[in-house]
Order: sequence, then C-alpha cells, then structure tokens
Amino acid sequence: MRNIKLTIEYDGGRYLGWQRLGNSDKTIQGKIENLLTQMTGEKIEIIGSGRTDAGTHARGQIANFKTNAELDIAEMISTLNHQLPRDIVIKDIEEVPERFHARYNATGKAYSYYVWNDVIPSAFERNYSFHYPQELDFDVMNQACEKLLGKHDFIGFSALKKTKKSTIRTIEKLSIEREGNLLHFTFVGDGFLHKMVRIIMGTLLEIGSGASKLDVIDEVLENKVRQEAGETVPAQGLFLDEVYYR
Amino acid sequence: MRNIKLTIEYDGGRYLGWQRLGNSDKTIQGKIENLLTQMTGEKIEIIGSGRTDAGTHARGQIANFKTNAELDIAEMISTLNHQLPRDIVIKDIEEVPERFHARYNATGKAYSYYVWNDVIPSAFERNYSFHYPQELDFDVMNQACEKLLGKHDFIGFSALKKTKKSTIRTIEKLSIEREGNLLHFTFVGDGFLHKMVRIIMGTLLEIGSGASKLDVIDEVLENKVRQEAGETVPAQGLFLDEVYYR
Repeated sequence: MRNIKLTIEYDGGRYLGWQRLGNSDKTIQGKIENLLTQMTGEKIEIIGSGRTDAGTHARGQIANFKTNAELDIAEMISTLNHQLPRDIVIKDIEEVPERFHARYNATGKAYSYYVWNDVIPSAFERNYSFHYPQELDFDVMNQACEKLLGKHDFIGFSALKKTKKSTIRTIEKLSIEREGNLLHFTFVGDGFLHKMVRIIMGTLLEIGSGASKLDVIDEVLENKVRQEAGETVPAQGLFLDEVYYR
Repeated sequence: MRNIKLTIEYDGGRYLGWQRLGNSDKTIQGKIENLLTQMTGEKIEIIGSGRTDAGTHARGQIANFKTNAELDIAEMISTLNHQLPRDIVIKDIEEVPERFHARYNATGKAYSYYVWNDVIPSAFERNYSFHYPQELDFDVMNQACEKLLGKHDFIGFSALKKTKKSTIRTIEKLSIEREGNLLHFTFVGDGFLHKMVRIIMGTLLEIGSGASKLDVIDEVLENKVRQEAGETVPAQGLFLDEVYYR
C-alpha cells in the first residue's frame, strides 16, 4: 500500500478545528478526507500530527494516509487545490515509507502566537492575532519565558483533567519579537498539551501587563493547578507552523 | 465650524468600494457617515481623498468632514472603532484648519499591489494578493517600470473614456520587492487615474511572463489606446497606503 504525506496550510477561521466530527463538513480533516475518498474511490482516513482547535490556523500541518490508488503526486496536489475551499491549501505531497505515521513519529512542533498590541485595532490582523491593548513589560515577560524553558510537568498550563498519560513536556524555545504593533511569540518543543500554548500566552500577557506576578509561573509548574494560570487567549492568534520528524 | 480629518484602514473585501451608493450600507463611506450622523445628530458628509474600487483595501485613506458637534477627539475614535465593523478601523483623528479638503489638497498617493507568485496558492494571502503562478522575468519588468516613471498621459492605462480633464500624471516611484513568493509592487505618484494601478499591473505581468513585449509600454503611452495595455488585475491585491498633503 502507498503511504502519502501531506503538508497542509489553512486559515482555521471558518472551521470547527482539524478533527473530523461525524459527517460535518466544517472540519479540515473532514474536507480533505471527503475529497480524497472521492478521488481514490476508497474510504480514506487521514492521520494528522495532532488536532488543532476551532479557529486555529496552520502553515505546516502534517498528515498521512494509505491508499492503493495509482494517482500521480503532481496531479493529486493540483486536483486537491482546485477542489478544496481557498482557505485550505495542500502545500506539498510526498510518497513516504509505509511505517511513517504523522502523529506517532512527530518529535516536536513549532507554533506562533500573534498579539496586536495597540489601543487602535487592526483591520488586517483582526482574524490572525489577539487584540490586547494594554502596555506590556517585555523584560518581565522575557523572564517568564526563561522560566518555562526546559522539561516540566505542564498540566497546570493545559485544559487536561488528571490523566494517566505523561504531561511532561520540554519547551526548547519561547521567544518574543516585535514587528511594529504586532508581537510574535514563537514556541518550539517536543509536544504541547491541549490548549497549552494559549494558556501560557494568557499567563504571559497577565504578567506583562502587571495583573499577575512573575512567580505565577513557578507556582503553576509546582502546584499543577490550572486555576492559578492565566486566561486561555483566543484561537485566532495561534498558528501551527511546523511539525518535526527525525 | 470644526473640520475633522480621519485616517482610515479597511479590508475592502466585503464592500462595494469607498463611495456611498444611495442608502446602501455596503460602502466604506456609507458606514462611517451613518455612524457620524448618529453620533453628532447632524447630517454628516465625509470627503474622501478619492474613491477606491470594490474589493480594494486601504491602510491610510484620508477623509474630512465638517461639524458643529462638540465631540472629544479621543472619545470619537474609541466610539467609532467600537461601533464600526472590525474590517474598518479609524487609525487617527485630527482637528484641522477649516480650509483643509481631503481630495483637493492631496498632492500624491502611494499604493501597493501584491502578487502571490507560486504554483501553489496561499491560504493567508488569498484575499490580499493576486495569485499569478507563471514564472516572471524581473529584469524585463524592472525595465518596464523605468519606462513608466515620470510625467506621461496615462489615459491608455486607465478605464476612462475621453475626458476634458487632464490625464497627465507623474509616477515618482514604481518598484518591485520579493518577499518569498509574495511580490510587492509600490506605486508613488501625484495621482492615479481610474484603475490605472491595476491596468499597469496587468501589463507588467504580461510583459514579465513573456505574453507581451516591453515595447507595449511605449505604444500605450504614445497611442493612448486602452486595448493595447494588459488586463485589469483583481482589486483584492490593491492597497491605498498613504495620501500626501503639503
């Protein structure tokens, strides 16, 4: 059987998220699976590197699927992009070894989160950033980022209930860049728990605006209590940029 | 009477253009006038620096209006931005001398046009650029830009019929920058005729892809015949960036 790897970009604004929900046509996975099923004549199931929540965007989501269909790769990419809605784009298709699994083989991920940090909103960034008008202290936010780096139990920074699965993750990079009024937060790590980036973001903004103290980071890492962390910021500022494989 | 100057940013995607059309709520001018009329209790008319076509965006459209209302500037900007749809943003409000007129006093304008130049489309640039997959020869396009610089009768590069008004304009700058697959064309001049930027863009792309020869520029400037120029490219790639005043 052939194993096909897809690199997918999407504007998540109109969708209920990555993961298929019954026969709903409002998920990214559903849209792509339905088309591939049509194209191949087989019941196709695609495996994503992980879910993205409703409203979250992706520049480099990875998925794979198995098929016996003898479709040409170049033709497949062009047919998919002609038939998919314009807010979902297949950037690349590759034939990969049969053992490749988009979720199990992922060794890390990179996310971006954007904040529009001005009193006046932006007509163009409105759907791709979180409008946060308060003044921010970048020194203290950078100190908070430092504290989050490395290997920790991040369950307090997640929407997970107690679970048997490990909630220990390693953040390798957490940086803040300013491009005019647009703040670009970059997260790189070996994996992120459900809503972890958005809850860390909410916590960083509360620390930056003075609503919380820097110590909150240590407390949440130690006490593992979700309520001590900040608000979950909106999904529209979040982008899955890249999935890493060995 | 007070004279108020507005700096306006808008995502033109949902609108029929700048200019008010009867009582339609689908124009930028209409949206803003209706709100100002409500806020002041006076019948407000705003004067734009010029029209933008349906689908065209603006980062710095300028308009002014006269009023007797004693509204505070800071309050006005915040009320407007709270009540306007999120794709129209008032970036700045200033009180200006009574003689200031957004259209008559404009001495120049800057526009951007964006082209997504790759076979694979972009989910994020889809509404803010023209997807043009053909390969382009930048040397010949830059030569074409050179030829367009300076003072010419641009009627052949416009959607205007014969007119008594002067169709002579000066282009001070016409440059091409590449940022990955996104091409950014910058136009600066003392004024632009109806659809002039979009027809010049269509001509440049036809020259760049080899569909037209470089000489077309001289021919259209000399013969003043619209049909000899290129296609009008879509409005969604066009941004009014700045309006200049002395």
